[in-house]
Amino acid sequence: MTDKINQPLPSANRTVFFVSDGTGITAETFGHSVLTQFDMKFKQVRLPFIDTLEKAHDAVRRINEAVTPDGKRPIVFSTLVKTDLANVVFKSKGMHMDLIQTFVSPLEQELGVKSTHTIGRSHNIADSEEYKNRIEAINFSLAHDDGQSNKNLSTADVILVGVSRSGKTPTSLYLAMQYGIKAANYPLIPDDFERGKLPSALPEFKGKIFGLSIAAERLSEIRNERRPGSKYASLENCRYEINEAEAMMKREGIRWLSSTAKSIEEISTTILQEIKSDVRVY
Amino acid sequence: MTDKINQPLPSANRTVFFVSDGTGITAETFGHSVLTQFDMKFKQVRLPFIDTLEKAHDAVRRINEAVTPDGKRPIVFSTLVKTDLANVVFKSKGMHMDLIQTFVSPLEQELGVKSTHTIGRSHNIADSEEYKNRIEAINFSLAHDDGQSNKNLSTADVILVGVSRSGKTPTSLYLAMQYGIKAANYPLIPDDFERGKLPSALPEFKGKIFGLSIAAERLSEIRNERRPGSKYASLENCRYEINEAEAMMKREGIRWLSSTAKSIEEISTTILQEIKSDVRVY
Repeated sequence: MTDKINQPLPSANRTVFFVSDGTGITAETFGHSVLTQFDMKFKQVRLPFIDTLEKAHDAVRRINEAVTPDGKRPIVFSTLVKTDLANVVFKSKGMHMDLIQTFVSPLEQELGVKSTHTIGRSHNIADSEEYKNRIEAINFSLAHDDGQSNKNLSTADVILVGVSRSGKTPTSLYLAMQYGIKAANYPLIPDDFERGKLPSALPEFKGKIFGLSIAAERLSEIRNERRPGSKYASLENCRYEINEAEAMMKREGIRWLSSTAKSIEEISTTILQEIKSDVRVY
Repeated sequence: MTDKINQPLPSANRTVFFVSDGTGITAETFGHSVLTQFDMKFKQVRLPFIDTLEKAHDAVRRINEAVTPDGKRPIVFSTLVKTDLANVVFKSKGMHMDLIQTFVSPLEQELGVKSTHTIGRSHNIADSEEYKNRIEAINFSLAHDDGQSNKNLSTADVILVGVSRSGKTPTSLYLAMQYGIKAANYPLIPDDFERGKLPSALPEFKGKIFGLSIAAERLSEIRNERRPGSKYASLENCRYEINEAEAMMKREGIRWLSSTAKSIEEISTTILQEIKSDVRVY
């Protein structure tokens, strides 16, 4: 865990708080999206599980202490469901932006019903079918990482293929963890290129295979971190493997994308669209 | 991947769209938080990568097509950074709630600067130090899953311990994937209980060990899914292992929590607080 500083940015000299009666993950995600619109550096503090009046008062104290000597007030992103807790926190000296309070009330009008104003379904998340599916998918994806197992491939939602270090493992785990997608992954290796065929377990599941490729320069860089100076990591070998893998995917009619400049979030979103799961009923 | 229906809820007969010029993950997270305040079922559609005027018009068409015959308009959660794209989408017949447009402008006033109004730093995510740390942490956590390796434990940010199936693996992967935390994990097994000692690689790192425990009934349920009717899964054995593990953690002064009714998000948030990483500078 290191500081998350990508480049020197001017400091805003402001503290940002993410306050929630739950984990604070939504408040933080939401706050980040807004803050990335500003080329500034902020000190960020997450205050999760603020679910009693006492904790709410404590949060107010911490927010107030972060007002700078020259009077710059902290920025507070929050997801506070209970109105009594929200009303305490809102009395702090910070600038408040609350996701729930801002949007729930117009939605109540639109839907013609009152919101539950409870802590929300997310707190029973660990008991839900959705959650169990996610945990099951993580176990599946781990057991089917790197071609480790051919068992139960028929129950996979997607099978990722690509050369070693093209991003298959983190993408499989992300798909499982965030979306409950059972994602197996298989490496394409020189043996496969010589035979000119996909790994033998795969052809019958061609409909759910998705390929990852990557620029040779980037691949060589990544492999060199693992095995510096090896033939495996050489630019020449990376070029060979990638050419062969892309030729094979074309020949077999496998959809693929380049992971070079993409995050696992972006790769996963594209795969989700391809496997038609952008429509879900909750 | 199955339907994410936890319990029968009345259908709102509404389609909800998550529209973004990026992955749509923030729009979806934000929308879910708001929608969970309503005990209703919604049909949900994600429209990611809406980054050209043509795609924006296409999104409008899809939103308009989802107006029901009796005139119920769709609900649209969006994170559209570029004003020209946002202005196109906002002309749809949906009810619009945009995270960026709602909060960026008050923040510009507060900070006294204009926002960048570009697609945002998140699009260069794959090149950032933060992203590289996350990928490195995933690799570390995988290599150190289930006590597989004692190498480089000194570089771990946290070491999770607990009986088999107490939730160590998914928590380790979540910490790595979301926060770039290098999380090793070690099972506590009957051998350790007989010796009355922690696995031999661990005592020198006691300061960063964190324990997971779980209710015996729940553990037995989980283990029975894997190995039905086994001694390993029996309630009696689960009780024995949990008692021993908890006694050992108390004796060794290891902080621990019960994972029984907690999601990996909640467990991870608690661990993050314990290892003092609720303050970060971006």
